[in-house]
Amino acid sequence: MSIRVTLKDGAALEFAPGVTVQEVAAQISKRLEKEALIGEVDGEPRDLSFPINSDAVVHILTFADPRGRDAFRHTSSHILAQAVLRLFPEAKLGIGPAIDSGFYYDFDVPRPFTPEDLVKIEEEMGKIVAADYAIQSFALPRDEAIAFMEERNQPYKVELIQDLPEDAVITFYKQGEFVDLCAGPHLSSTGQVKAFKLLQAAGAYWRGSEKNKMLQRIYGTSFPKKGQLDEYLAQLEEAKRRDHNKLGRELELFTTVDVVGQGLPLLMPKGAKVFQILQRFVEDEEERRGYQITKTPFMAKKDLYEISGHWDHYRDGMFIIGDEDKGDELLALRPMTCPFQFMIYKSKLRSYRDLPLRYSETSTLFRNEASGEMHGLIRLRQFTISEGHIICMPEQLEDEFRKVIDLIDYILDVLGLREDIWFRFSKWDPNDKGKYIDQPEAWEHAQRSMKAILDRLGLDYEEAEGEAAFYGPKLDIQSRNVHGKEDTIITVQIDFALPERFDLSYVDQDGTKKRPLVIHRTSVGCYERTLAMLIEKYAGALPTWLAPVQVRLLPISDAHLEYTAGLLEKLRAGGFRAEVDKRNEKIGYKIREGRLERIPYLLIVGDKEVDEGAVSVRSRKEGDLGPMAFADFMQKLGDEVASRVR
Amino acid sequence: MSIRVTLKDGAALEFAPGVTVQEVAAQISKRLEKEALIGEVDGEPRDLSFPINSDAVVHILTFADPRGRDAFRHTSSHILAQAVLRLFPEAKLGIGPAIDSGFYYDFDVPRPFTPEDLVKIEEEMGKIVAADYAIQSFALPRDEAIAFMEERNQPYKVELIQDLPEDAVITFYKQGEFVDLCAGPHLSSTGQVKAFKLLQAAGAYWRGSEKNKMLQRIYGTSFPKKGQLDEYLAQLEEAKRRDHNKLGRELELFTTVDVVGQGLPLLMPKGAKVFQILQRFVEDEEERRGYQITKTPFMAKKDLYEISGHWDHYRDGMFIIGDEDKGDELLALRPMTCPFQFMIYKSKLRSYRDLPLRYSETSTLFRNEASGEMHGLIRLRQFTISEGHIICMPEQLEDEFRKVIDLIDYILDVLGLREDIWFRFSKWDPNDKGKYIDQPEAWEHAQRSMKAILDRLGLDYEEAEGEAAFYGPKLDIQSRNVHGKEDTIITVQIDFALPERFDLSYVDQDGTKKRPLVIHRTSVGCYERTLAMLIEKYAGALPTWLAPVQVRLLPISDAHLEYTAGLLEKLRAGGFRAEVDKRNEKIGYKIREGRLERIPYLLIVGDKEVDEGAVSVRSRKEGDLGPMAFADFMQKLGDEVASRVR
Repeated sequence: MSIRVTLKDGAALEFAPGVTVQEVAAQISKRLEKEALIGEVDGEPRDLSFPINSDAVVHILTFADPRGRDAFRHTSSHILAQAVLRLFPEAKLGIGPAIDSGFYYDFDVPRPFTPEDLVKIEEEMGKIVAADYAIQSFALPRDEAIAFMEERNQPYKVELIQDLPEDAVITFYKQGEFVDLCAGPHLSSTGQVKAFKLLQAAGAYWRGSEKNKMLQRIYGTSFPKKGQLDEYLAQLEEAKRRDHNKLGRELELFTTVDVVGQGLPLLMPKGAKVFQILQRFVEDEEERRGYQITKTPFMAKKDLYEISGHWDHYRDGMFIIGDEDKGDELLALRPMTCPFQFMIYKSKLRSYRDLPLRYSETSTLFRNEASGEMHGLIRLRQFTISEGHIICMPEQLEDEFRKVIDLIDYILDVLGLREDIWFRFSKWDPNDKGKYIDQPEAWEHAQRSMKAILDRLGLDYEEAEGEAAFYGPKLDIQSRNVHGKEDTIITVQIDFALPERFDLSYVDQDGTKKRPLVIHRTSVGCYERTLAMLIEKYAGALPTWLAPVQVRLLPISDAHLEYTAGLLEKLRAGGFRAEVDKRNEKIGYKIREGRLERIPYLLIVGDKEVDEGAVSVRSRKEGDLGPMAFADFMQKLGDEVASRVR
Repeated sequence: MSIRVTLKDGAALEFAPGVTVQEVAAQISKRLEKEALIGEVDGEPRDLSFPINSDAVVHILTFADPRGRDAFRHTSSHILAQAVLRLFPEAKLGIGPAIDSGFYYDFDVPRPFTPEDLVKIEEEMGKIVAADYAIQSFALPRDEAIAFMEERNQPYKVELIQDLPEDAVITFYKQGEFVDLCAGPHLSSTGQVKAFKLLQAAGAYWRGSEKNKMLQRIYGTSFPKKGQLDEYLAQLEEAKRRDHNKLGRELELFTTVDVVGQGLPLLMPKGAKVFQILQRFVEDEEERRGYQITKTPFMAKKDLYEISGHWDHYRDGMFIIGDEDKGDELLALRPMTCPFQFMIYKSKLRSYRDLPLRYSETSTLFRNEASGEMHGLIRLRQFTISEGHIICMPEQLEDEFRKVIDLIDYILDVLGLREDIWFRFSKWDPNDKGKYIDQPEAWEHAQRSMKAILDRLGLDYEEAEGEAAFYGPKLDIQSRNVHGKEDTIITVQIDFALPERFDLSYVDQDGTKKRPLVIHRTSVGCYERTLAMLIEKYAGALPTWLAPVQVRLLPISDAHLEYTAGLLEKLRAGGFRAEVDKRNEKIGYKIREGRLERIPYLLIVGDKEVDEGAVSVRSRKEGDLGPMAFADFMQKLGDEVASRVR
């Protein structure tokens, strides 16, 4: 008798019943045997020691697989807990899962962990790894499981067991003297966790509720190889260095204030200047491409949102003004610009000759976000978007869609962000009817049409179910921030539903009234988020055409003030953003400060420069360029700005 | 025995007791005798027939005086009522006062008045004027007065008498067969109302309450001379022609929509374009003058407004979000930008070297206006203002104030609005403590300082009590719209109070912490209102640099389409706003439409123009300029736009 094991690639192998996952891996390749962390048997994650007794589909999971990685980090958290119990025997254990970037474990200890504690715990973890304890699981009946954890003085574990269903199989994992309540799977031995690092300690409520006790959480990460850990830690450092929420404040681009509120950043003069430059760039480019600008109100009566469907499908996301119980007129701050631009379309009779009509607006939108979700310039309660709607005849749809993609492509390219994005085709979820306008056939038709267009345009995209807007499918442009978090930065939607709800129409060539289609689109996306992305992309060193201060003049002494004043005037008359550092400080100090502020050009002016009508140029990008005739510098700067060099 | 009558100019005349006002006027001059309408005796308005029995101060009032004018129009309203009763004997009389622009009278009649009715009523009024009835007053005791009006079947008059105090002297005025309950004064005879015109009829609730019956109101106006009436009617026509609320819609600059709401206009592409041009002009000019741009959120927590005082002094004017009873976090849409810019000031330590700091923002504000007050682009629930704050040391105040006035002067001059404005110094009202921050000494000090600055600047201003902001005195720049309604379009405030409340400070040269002063200012004022003023000022024909469409190309036939397409491209590449009228219409029709849309330049293109590389230029301002080389036209247009010619 033998059993048949089908592998990931479809190949099948014969084994004796009782063969372990580990043995299957060994049979496939030496390398896989070495890299195997856990297995998946008929879709269930299993330890490598799991015996296979009948025909099965078996996948061997390594660190390259998210589930393999999770098991690796889960074992790492057990090693952490084991080390903590050795150093703090009175510690009570909470939970210790794997997370995206590593793992954590929560402990009830008399005082918070100090950085010195973390160093000691790391050392102890090193010993546990070196000891290479075998990791084994066992099961206990409920009563015995409770008694076991009571004996070990672990009340949180007792509570967890009590919450399990009556008929649950209660499993534990053991490594050396350490035993934890755990469903697994785990690695075979602690020795596999070759590279790990504890990152920080922070308070965390038991079970996430502030009604419970505050425990102490230790975060860490781990990798099979030291090289991988080092690379990750370097990335983490780089992310911290580039983090817009830190750097944007240091560079005085924005600030936040408690009494103003969460998700409501204030753009300081430098941030507002970059915003203004971006806005003019986008508005001008859109105008060049045949868009007409609108400026519509930020609020409207409930009546408008009842037509659009927002009142039924998006009410919780809106800020409502007025008290219905008191008979007030209800107004809502807008979460989208579409209904307003539709009203402009409807303000007069439209003919086929008027189409396509392309409306765009630098539009402020409002979302009633939960507090926890707001961050820097990214998740906001108020934000500004380059929002537009193209109203067109069905036969114009594909061409207009292509033009939208062209525009986005151009803008992202100029900003230097194109290389970091990818496309996602976001579809509805037919099983989540409440979230969407309930017209299954229209949905299927819209999605088929959109897919056909995407395919004809030759876009490389992934598909995502349940990510559509409530009124139609979307093409999402996805990006990742410095912390690796994925976000939709731009969307383009084809809308077959709202033209109906708003009764949009045009008179066709044959004199009949017809229904246009709508493309909802943004070009640069949300300005605040774009600013965040630019800060992170360029680590604060914004391209010269976007830099809030492009040139700073550094007179060596007061004797050079008059000459620099003349240069300043010329620079400003030339439309450049320039300033003079008049302070009575050493030139080295002034240069250092200018660099810290990421100013593209520092122009040093001393006796020699005054005599020669020159400036000594320190370029942020090219370093010390030495003396240069001032007119030549103006020319160089002008070229750089006009061509929007990154 | 004689009495002494002191005149307006201080001169005194002797008369026998019992001399009438009319006789005093005759004594002064023939002309005054003729123009006298009523008199004022010891401050009380009196009929010309009023006998003066003892020493008194007497002013003779003509139509040039507002009180004289009111009496004239009040008599006119009696003539109207007399005519209506002759034509509609069953009519019940409401009230009939003089108003700013004329008079009205309310009638309870079975059906609304038609335009034909008004013509007949005017004819009848003409007969009453021609009959030149003497107008005489008499008094009745309360009971008799009621009986008198009951007898004449005038229930509204009865109701009015019943509402008078028990001891009131109840007077009536009689002209011919017509008698009205009236306190007077009136002209001496109906013949003085030489020129009158009924303007419109409209419904109006008795006593202004919708719980009462709807009466029919007839509006009219009247003058001593026909020339004055004609001039007024021409002005009225002109105002209608220029009214931004009518013209702005016709020119597709803006629209309003019921389901969006009152006071929330939507700027259509042409209006939004003008807005964009204005905004860039103002922002660039402010930057040139050392302002730093900010972009701050449109809402904040209650906490911020508690510091600023808006929560106590301006709560009803704000849109509040959240329900306090439900424990929600309360947010309010901002009515002003100051607290936000103060927060930017406070985001770092400031030194005397940093001052003055000039912040400006193209800022959206919100005011919870009552429905009835909203109109076109003028009284809005959401509007956009060029709002800025200058934070300076006390010794910089006057210079900064002067610079603010310079900037406003420059902007109003460029826009062509300077000639229409005047200054008002708005002070607090010490008797209305609830409306103002209650620090009488600080107010007196602030007002004295501000007055001294205004006087040193040599500004010609009027003073107004009770018009200050709740935190300080203001210099208001006043204007009148086409309908003659006065409005504050720009304010500049010196603020001694909020720097204290927000604990603003700077480190002075001597190392000590000091309190700066704040100037609140706008430069162009509210953009929406500025747009309204520009529409009315130029009757829709906006100066070329502001015109949403500057040039329209009119090909005579399809044969000229290719050539015009080339010109269009050149115009757009030159930064001009141009379009082509490709329709298959007669050239005369295209020219007429272009004129109606107030397009500055219509370029006609036919065979001759194509052959010669020319265009035939129709200038909105200069008329038909004939053929012109296209390059010359581009040059002309460029010069006109660059110099912002009106």
